[in-house]
Amino acid sequence: MMTSSGPIRRVALLTSGGDAPGLNAVIRAFVKTARLEFGWDVYGVEDGFEGLIGKPKIRPLDLSDVRGLLPMGGTILGSTNKGHFSSFEIVEGRRVHDPAALNAVCETVRKLRIDGLVVLGGEGSQAIALDLYENGVPTVGVPKTIDNDLGGTDMTFGFHTALWVATDAIDRLHSTAASHDRVMVLEVMGRHAGWIALYAGIGGGADVILIPEIPFTFEAVADKILEREAHGTEFSIIVVAEGATPAGGTAVYQSEHEKRLGGIGQSVAEEVQRRTGKETRVVVLGHLQRGGSPTPSDRVLATRFGVAAAKAIAERKFGQMVALRCGQLTTVPLREVAGIVRGVPVDSDLISTARALGISMGDERG
Amino acid sequence: MMTSSGPIRRVALLTSGGDAPGLNAVIRAFVKTARLEFGWDVYGVEDGFEGLIGKPKIRPLDLSDVRGLLPMGGTILGSTNKGHFSSFEIVEGRRVHDPAALNAVCETVRKLRIDGLVVLGGEGSQAIALDLYENGVPTVGVPKTIDNDLGGTDMTFGFHTALWVATDAIDRLHSTAASHDRVMVLEVMGRHAGWIALYAGIGGGADVILIPEIPFTFEAVADKILEREAHGTEFSIIVVAEGATPAGGTAVYQSEHEKRLGGIGQSVAEEVQRRTGKETRVVVLGHLQRGGSPTPSDRVLATRFGVAAAKAIAERKFGQMVALRCGQLTTVPLREVAGIVRGVPVDSDLISTARALGISMGDERG
Amino acid sequence: MMTSSGPIRRVALLTSGGDAPGLNAVIRAFVKTARLEFGWDVYGVEDGFEGLIGKPKIRPLDLSDVRGLLPMGGTILGSTNKGHFSSFEIVEGRRVHDPAALNAVCETVRKLRIDGLVVLGGEGSQAIALDLYENGVPTVGVPKTIDNDLGGTDMTFGFHTALWVATDAIDRLHSTAASHDRVMVLEVMGRHAGWIALYAGIGGGADVILIPEIPFTFEAVADKILEREAHGTEFSIIVVAEGATPAGGTAVYQSEHEKRLGGIGQSVAEEVQRRTGKETRVVVLGHLQRGGSPTPSDRVLATRFGVAAAKAIAERKFGQMVALRCGQLTTVPLREVAGIVRGVPVDSDLISTARALGISMGDERG
Amino acid sequence: MMTSSGPIRRVALLTSGGDAPGLNAVIRAFVKTARLEFGWDVYGVEDGFEGLIGKPKIRPLDLSDVRGLLPMGGTILGSTNKGHFSSFEIVEGRRVHDPAALNAVCETVRKLRIDGLVVLGGEGSQAIALDLYENGVPTVGVPKTIDNDLGGTDMTFGFHTALWVATDAIDRLHSTAASHDRVMVLEVMGRHAGWIALYAGIGGGADVILIPEIPFTFEAVADKILEREAHGTEFSIIVVAEGATPAGGTAVYQSEHEKRLGGIGQSVAEEVQRRTGKETRVVVLGHLQRGGSPTPSDRVLATRFGVAAAKAIAERKFGQMVALRCGQLTTVPLREVAGIVRGVPVDSDLISTARALGISMGDERG
Repeated sequence: MMTSSGPIRRVALLTSGGDAPGLNAVIRAFVKTARLEFGWDVYGVEDGFEGLIGKPKIRPLDLSDVRGLLPMGGTILGSTNKGHFSSFEIVEGRRVHDPAALNAVCETVRKLRIDGLVVLGGEGSQAIALDLYENGVPTVGVPKTIDNDLGGTDMTFGFHTALWVATDAIDRLHSTAASHDRVMVLEVMGRHAGWIALYAGIGGGADVILIPEIPFTFEAVADKILEREAHGTEFSIIVVAEGATPAGGTAVYQSEHEKRLGGIGQSVAEEVQRRTGKETRVVVLGHLQRGGSPTPSDRVLATRFGVAAAKAIAERKFGQMVALRCGQLTTVPLREVAGIVRGVPVDSDLISTARALGISMGDERG
Repeated sequence: MMTSSGPIRRVALLTSGGDAPGLNAVIRAFVKTARLEFGWDVYGVEDGFEGLIGKPKIRPLDLSDVRGLLPMGGTILGSTNKGHFSSFEIVEGRRVHDPAALNAVCETVRKLRIDGLVVLGGEGSQAIALDLYENGVPTVGVPKTIDNDLGGTDMTFGFHTALWVATDAIDRLHSTAASHDRVMVLEVMGRHAGWIALYAGIGGGADVILIPEIPFTFEAVADKILEREAHGTEFSIIVVAEGATPAGGTAVYQSEHEKRLGGIGQSVAEEVQRRTGKETRVVVLGHLQRGGSPTPSDRVLATRFGVAAAKAIAERKFGQMVALRCGQLTTVPLREVAGIVRGVPVDSDLISTARALGISMGDERG
Repeated sequence: MMTSSGPIRRVALLTSGGDAPGLNAVIRAFVKTARLEFGWDVYGVEDGFEGLIGKPKIRPLDLSDVRGLLPMGGTILGSTNKGHFSSFEIVEGRRVHDPAALNAVCETVRKLRIDGLVVLGGEGSQAIALDLYENGVPTVGVPKTIDNDLGGTDMTFGFHTALWVATDAIDRLHSTAASHDRVMVLEVMGRHAGWIALYAGIGGGADVILIPEIPFTFEAVADKILEREAHGTEFSIIVVAEGATPAGGTAVYQSEHEKRLGGIGQSVAEEVQRRTGKETRVVVLGHLQRGGSPTPSDRVLATRFGVAAAKAIAERKFGQMVALRCGQLTTVPLREVAGIVRGVPVDSDLISTARALGISMGDERG
Repeated sequence: MMTSSGPIRRVALLTSGGDAPGLNAVIRAFVKTARLEFGWDVYGVEDGFEGLIGKPKIRPLDLSDVRGLLPMGGTILGSTNKGHFSSFEIVEGRRVHDPAALNAVCETVRKLRIDGLVVLGGEGSQAIALDLYENGVPTVGVPKTIDNDLGGTDMTFGFHTALWVATDAIDRLHSTAASHDRVMVLEVMGRHAGWIALYAGIGGGADVILIPEIPFTFEAVADKILEREAHGTEFSIIVVAEGATPAGGTAVYQSEHEKRLGGIGQSVAEEVQRRTGKETRVVVLGHLQRGGSPTPSDRVLATRFGVAAAKAIAERKFGQMVALRCGQLTTVPLREVAGIVRGVPVDSDLISTARALGISMGDERG
């Protein structure tokens, strides 16, 4: 196996899937640690796993290449959520990727004599990293998702930045809602988990929060608006995760094209307007949540992960993903996290906190 | 005429049309000046002109009512862009409003013995203020539009805040665009004038800026994207004002309902993707531009206008609107500004600045 | 004992010590939960414990009193870090407060028939809360310190906001430092613990971070600056916690008056300039770190604490403090946290992360 | 004369004096215009005029060198406010600089065959540019000062960014001041002019604003604090420009060393505390006002100036400075602006606006 050979000399890293604020901070921290602490040669792979298929798209990374990266959004390595690994089969509950593509990556890693490959990506990318590891590639995972829905780690970088953008949006919508006696609907990211919607909703003072973990009814949402009106408050704010689903319905976020024709945010707005007669407007935050300079917490977490990835390679913890658990850095086996989505537990105090404040989660409990 | 009678004792103000950051700062400054400097009784009218039709919706405003208002978005008086004056006829180039509604307002003002009525609003609201003035109501106008497109004044409050939000959005989209080799389209406000798009596009480093004042072609837009690609830059940022119109086409922003089905931003995204083959995404900023705490410049301008409105009443400059001209506060006759939209002059150095930087305005000049 | 009597009907809360962003969010969440979920009467105590000595300074708090408080900095109840409890004796390692003042508070609580008293404060205030509890007052503590240095809880609200301000300051100083080849010293809060300095230093890309937990030498600091210069980097950023202390020296932050004459930040600046010959400037952030709207995370944490405090009263968990442990809300006995300061553990990965990046902690390890 | 020769082929630019947000945006716009529109070779001079004395410190600047500069604070060319031109004599009201240094610069410009030299700097730097021009160097000035106090132009870039930082600081201090019944003193930049203090004070809702243009008395300041207390408001905010001076006193800002021992901000705090008995705290913003990403308005203005400077060279408007007058770009003779400081006119509506709101300017008018 590649992963069992001699001293570490050359390492590489790649960023996979949608971009997230903090990727560049991870790259910077990894390169600094790899160079200053371990003296390895470091290579950056461009365009995610695609850069390791066919003619390699790699470039050496030294200290001068990562100067100034800490506060920068995006990834200097480029990324893609398309390509050879974008489709897969599910066999016995596990994702099985295109064997030819896997072989191609293994072959490239072998040829380039890479002793450690860091994969920055979400649950799908970590599943690929696992497959590669089981085919002999010495991978180390770094969790990445602004949705904060990855298994094995308590927190992912990018989440706080997305939360900042979403909460700022609610703050802004409040003035207009209150001035015009309107209902404002804000659709935020979160296909499989409602972390952003729940945190931003509580932090921004929303009246209704709809998340994928709790099926909602339009009736309950409209009732809340009308209840507020009955108490003399003419405006309301609804925060809805893109993956929120009406009870008995199915998630509506599938494609970009359909999205343009209106996601769940718009459905909620239309139904609320129809049922309450109140003027209702929708704002879809979309890509604004992904971009920009990471918040201080995200920069720190990304930096810790970057350093930890280098140390994991030094300790030959291949097939593992770095993670934050109870405030401590640790590693978890890729096997335990690949393809796993971590939703908001329904017994989370965050949800009971929301309910105690009178926020409706769109279900029968109001 | 109401406007010629004795000493000023009671004044009122109302906010009309869409909300803008800074309205509360105007209210605060007006009330402070009216109370501290002139000792008048001040009344706030709720829900714009509607609050003066039928049973008056007014409340006294004293210093304690305006404490803390300076940094707050929205308007504590409420506003509406619907109601008795939302439709009008054009007679000899001038708007003619519902005479019954006008009479109702005049009657209320007379009964309440209001010696000065401040109207915070856009060109439409100033046209109503003019009509009222000509019917004997002692009105003073305060210009209000985040679009910065009002005649008679060099600048309106709310514009800098909208500019801030739009530029921040471009900054955020840059990271994603560059990381994913995408074209990002940002649709900003500006039905009749491209001030926000032009300033934000220059300030955010856009590659294409489309404004109502310059008809564009999809071909020119696509050409710019492809030209950048030919020079090795795989991503581009397009900023489009909601009122931008393809040459030979018509503006597409009419209704909220249609807007949901996609405004000009989406059309541009679809055409660019079709013509260039590049992955393209659109973000519609919408109501985010209206809300939130005003920027320092907007707070200062709003405060100056609020003080100036009180002084204009004291000097009986009725039928006038306060304005900023070359950095100086002044007043202009409502007759000269009512219903007038101030677009970006096509010979503005802002446009030639954009072109000098290589920004395409979507026309044949690239 | 007061704490063992019948059903809960009347509760009160007070804010003690320096203000922190999020206090108002706690008040809002507590009042909402107490009113909506439990139907209690709620009273706000003004000016901390002082409001319970002599003639009570209290006022009822209902839903309308807490509207709009979520994003507001400061505390509507007022606070003080002076008064009857500002001095104490240490007896057998525990603080002993003025018995007359304690009795006065007990007496007031008894007279007002308060069935639960929430104390928002730092370690000193929790020590008072403990003393009161042991004298029969049914207290529940809510941890409050922007320094994040309270025992028993993983995180306190206000910390993220202070971190934001400090990191933003470093970002700003970077441009000037780099443009002018200067050393910039930023003094941040943290008398007993270096959390703000460490997080902000890592998040802002500092070159030297000095914290109370690690005694530093001016020599090591100057060496780092000169080492950077030798490698061609002419500027450096130093972040120093106000409680950082030279090896063998003593902390210099004691009084406001002395502070004006220059705290540790200025000493560092002077020594660095003297030893390296480089132009050095110092900025003391001071009160800027305490104020302003709390960040989204701080608003959420404060809200969770506010709800948890109400639930703790309902469950009669008196003599306890609400806390966050491993992402879960819980309570800890006041006895375990009163007067306890939680510094950065010297084996924390945050410190090894900083060192791996080449950041000097000012000690012999560089 | 150098300035009269043939076609323009090579141009250079330098940044002089303290850095200001927007310098990099000017550099970017100038390089883009010079390359794309005119096809000139462009050189950047390092460390201001010093880079043209002795061995030239210059480097070619092409489009790739200015990518990403728009939102970046500072100056990639470096700057200094020390060196050969830091001292001068005043002869007949004009500054006379070291002839040897002037000759050295002329010589370098001649040898490098530079056909146009852009000088980004304040009034002092423009005086040097004028001297150089009169010695045959084809200079074009670009105004630069965050203080907004340059003659000949209505606005300078960097001012809005400084204003943003200062107003944000006041917003933050408000929460603490109100929570603790304190007086907070904020010292902002402005040695010769009170633009920042006046705008930030109005925009942040200060109670007292002290500027160099209006000598103040400690008595008037203390009276205002006491008057507020008499009306039941226990806290106050004072904004003081570093150049504000007590009536009959002299400005106290001279040296950095003295500054550390306390500038005017501290004097005000001490006198207010002494005279009113109220707890008073001071924050000196200092270098925070200079750094960070420029605001959108500053980016746009800097960009317009950069383009205009290139166009001024193309039109051979040497010995001129680009300027903004009534919203229009223009040029003014260096002779009219060199060494001129533009203070706030005492009859400015900004000052009467402040007074109308009840803000004290620290003079006998309260």
